[in-house]
Amino acid sequence: MNVDLFVENGWILTMDGGDRAWEKGGMAVRGEEIVAIGSMESLSHIRAEECINAAEAIVLPGFVNVHTHASMTLFRGLADDLPLMNWLENHIFPAEAKLTENLVGLGAELACLEMMASGTTTFCDMYLFENAVAEAANRAGMRAVVGEVLYDFPSPCYGPIEKGFAHVEKMIERWNSHPRITVALKPHSPYLCAPDLLQKAFQMARTHQLPFVIHLSETLAEKEKILAAYGKSPTAHLASLGVLSPQTLAAHCVVMDGEDIALLAETGTCVAHNPQSNMKLASGIAPVPAFLQAGIPVGLGTDGAASNNDLNMFSEMRTAALLHKVASGDPTVMDARTVLRMATIEGARCLGMDHKTGSLEVGKQADFILIRRNAPHMTPMYNPFSHVIYAAGRNDISDVFVAGRGVYRNRTFITLDAERICAGVREAARSFC
Amino acid sequence: MNVDLFVENGWILTMDGGDRAWEKGGMAVRGEEIVAIGSMESLSHIRAEECINAAEAIVLPGFVNVHTHASMTLFRGLADDLPLMNWLENHIFPAEAKLTENLVGLGAELACLEMMASGTTTFCDMYLFENAVAEAANRAGMRAVVGEVLYDFPSPCYGPIEKGFAHVEKMIERWNSHPRITVALKPHSPYLCAPDLLQKAFQMARTHQLPFVIHLSETLAEKEKILAAYGKSPTAHLASLGVLSPQTLAAHCVVMDGEDIALLAETGTCVAHNPQSNMKLASGIAPVPAFLQAGIPVGLGTDGAASNNDLNMFSEMRTAALLHKVASGDPTVMDARTVLRMATIEGARCLGMDHKTGSLEVGKQADFILIRRNAPHMTPMYNPFSHVIYAAGRNDISDVFVAGRGVYRNRTFITLDAERICAGVREAARSFC
Repeated sequence: MNVDLFVENGWILTMDGGDRAWEKGGMAVRGEEIVAIGSMESLSHIRAEECINAAEAIVLPGFVNVHTHASMTLFRGLADDLPLMNWLENHIFPAEAKLTENLVGLGAELACLEMMASGTTTFCDMYLFENAVAEAANRAGMRAVVGEVLYDFPSPCYGPIEKGFAHVEKMIERWNSHPRITVALKPHSPYLCAPDLLQKAFQMARTHQLPFVIHLSETLAEKEKILAAYGKSPTAHLASLGVLSPQTLAAHCVVMDGEDIALLAETGTCVAHNPQSNMKLASGIAPVPAFLQAGIPVGLGTDGAASNNDLNMFSEMRTAALLHKVASGDPTVMDARTVLRMATIEGARCLGMDHKTGSLEVGKQADFILIRRNAPHMTPMYNPFSHVIYAAGRNDISDVFVAGRGVYRNRTFITLDAERICAGVREAARSFC
Repeated sequence: MNVDLFVENGWILTMDGGDRAWEKGGMAVRGEEIVAIGSMESLSHIRAEECINAAEAIVLPGFVNVHTHASMTLFRGLADDLPLMNWLENHIFPAEAKLTENLVGLGAELACLEMMASGTTTFCDMYLFENAVAEAANRAGMRAVVGEVLYDFPSPCYGPIEKGFAHVEKMIERWNSHPRITVALKPHSPYLCAPDLLQKAFQMARTHQLPFVIHLSETLAEKEKILAAYGKSPTAHLASLGVLSPQTLAAHCVVMDGEDIALLAETGTCVAHNPQSNMKLASGIAPVPAFLQAGIPVGLGTDGAASNNDLNMFSEMRTAALLHKVASGDPTVMDARTVLRMATIEGARCLGMDHKTGSLEVGKQADFILIRRNAPHMTPMYNPFSHVIYAAGRNDISDVFVAGRGVYRNRTFITLDAERICAGVREAARSFC
């Protein structure tokens, strides 16, 4: 069997439904697709144009970061350790008022560099001037779900909300047939979007069969606001509007009671869990073990770099694993496999992409990463799942492929010019401080 | 002024009492000591044998890891996601029963590699066969406080406890005049050490003016056990034995009420905070903001690699900063400067070493690190304190010096043979699984 690429002798964790793994495994890629995977013995018939020696590596599907505001890399560390409203109103909003489409594109390029170098192959982004994010992801060679943020007040990108819907229609038209870029409907939140806006956006998501992504129940203040306005919890409010569904991805879901959780489960709604952002802003701890017990699909996200302050899925995974153990008092919750599933196949499921990415299986897109396991902090290795969650870091990523194409090889960027981008961002940053 | 080494053009964070910092700063080193530090303009008279260009770096005192069991790197990832007693009794204790002095030394060498590569210059260790840890730290060129663990039952190292004290006396004699290795008295905990043992160990610490380090109030089970045995909380029990003092470093201090905190403050006792280990084992959240408010010196520790699973002070700092924000609901607690002080000068204070290390000041030992700030995840930079805590990682460390000697230069180990040590540990690991 002739193929383009053969990854050989790796410790392969497929993250597929059967949780298959091979200590000495191989994976063959033709074009964009995985065409064979298994033990090395079972693949002796493979003849490849290029072989990658993975003898000292763990081979994994690329991480799926289900909640980002990529261009906020521009504001990384601009303001920390502040109360939410002070942080937003005195630091982030004034900085965002200076944004242009070009700056958003530059920030998104920086985010793509950072995400690729830490093993992320797919991200789900919400921001202003989102076409520029789509273009950056496209140049980077990454897979992305992009969505212009919609809210009741005028946007610097599209103006009044009526023009917002027209803008999103055009985005859908433009990116509709792109193999790696998907457009989603992204109303900001129940507290910045009127019921009409939410229902119209959801209808559009339904019509085009696209994800509907929204911030939900991030803080107690939000819950109180929605309770006062509509007499319902934010989750019950969205349920009553009919916008909870398997197409819906709700980010944060921190302040949730049993009824809220039941509503998510009944409607098939997915959750984007962002533990580091929720901790840094002191928003609270999302009841993730209860979500999992209720059968709710949960993916992991970093949120924006202004509230994290990086886009590193390794530290997000580690934090998720540790936080819920101490919060529940039970060291067996959020075990390494569960968390790794959240960062890969469950994330893909949240984006409606689990038929395409999130696990290493024949017929799926060849979105995969190599994690080197020869550094002192990775030695010895008893269990690769444990090491990915509790020991590895972004510095262990050596190679990243999206749709069969190497976008980061031997710790070097292939698709983007890191020096130019970082210099551009350093220059742009002067106007924000 | 002629010096051996001049670090030039770095963003220098001294972590001294005045919190001095220079965006374009220099530091001169002669022999083991810092002999000049300040803005570049103020140092034009320096003539150096070797110059280090720190133009793209943050220059910091090396991290002080105040609580390790270094050789447990041998068991990194051996067992995770388990209840404490199952983890200890079915996995860790059986593995530890196979330990020899040689294996402890090998594990400690691996730990030194990992700690140096992540910017730690000083660590405080408690384990069996601790002479082997001291030797490893000495070979590595690191600074260490070492202590043979003492408890009521016989030790594989020294036999019955009477011989334990003789063993520690010999250790003190052996290392007494070493410039980088200090011996400490290290009874395990109130629940594994009878009052006699604790008082005798404390007396020895007093006589030799050495640190007295003990696990304290790590879990609710410990508190209940001590309450049943002595009618007091673990902290009150130690206070009644007279072993709380400024020489005392209490590790964990998770299950603490207001009276316990007052006792620590009154006696001048120091605390080693190990957030990741406490989270992973679901022990609980130490009331660190309350400790700080009470004026208790608090340092940061990783604990052993079996419950972490690495010895990386960056992720420990980030976790400490995030955890207490969400636990208290206040995003202003544990700000970046406070946490960085805990990982440097406050850690040194906990070990009675703040006259020697933990900050960059003239007359102190030249224990310092360079953190590169040119990677995408470090771009842009508005505030170096924020970046060290919320964005940087071990991969950003390029150079580490202890007592004026480069032990890690340009991301390369100078003092230890990483390949030999990692191969040795991989071989040894076969006997533990």
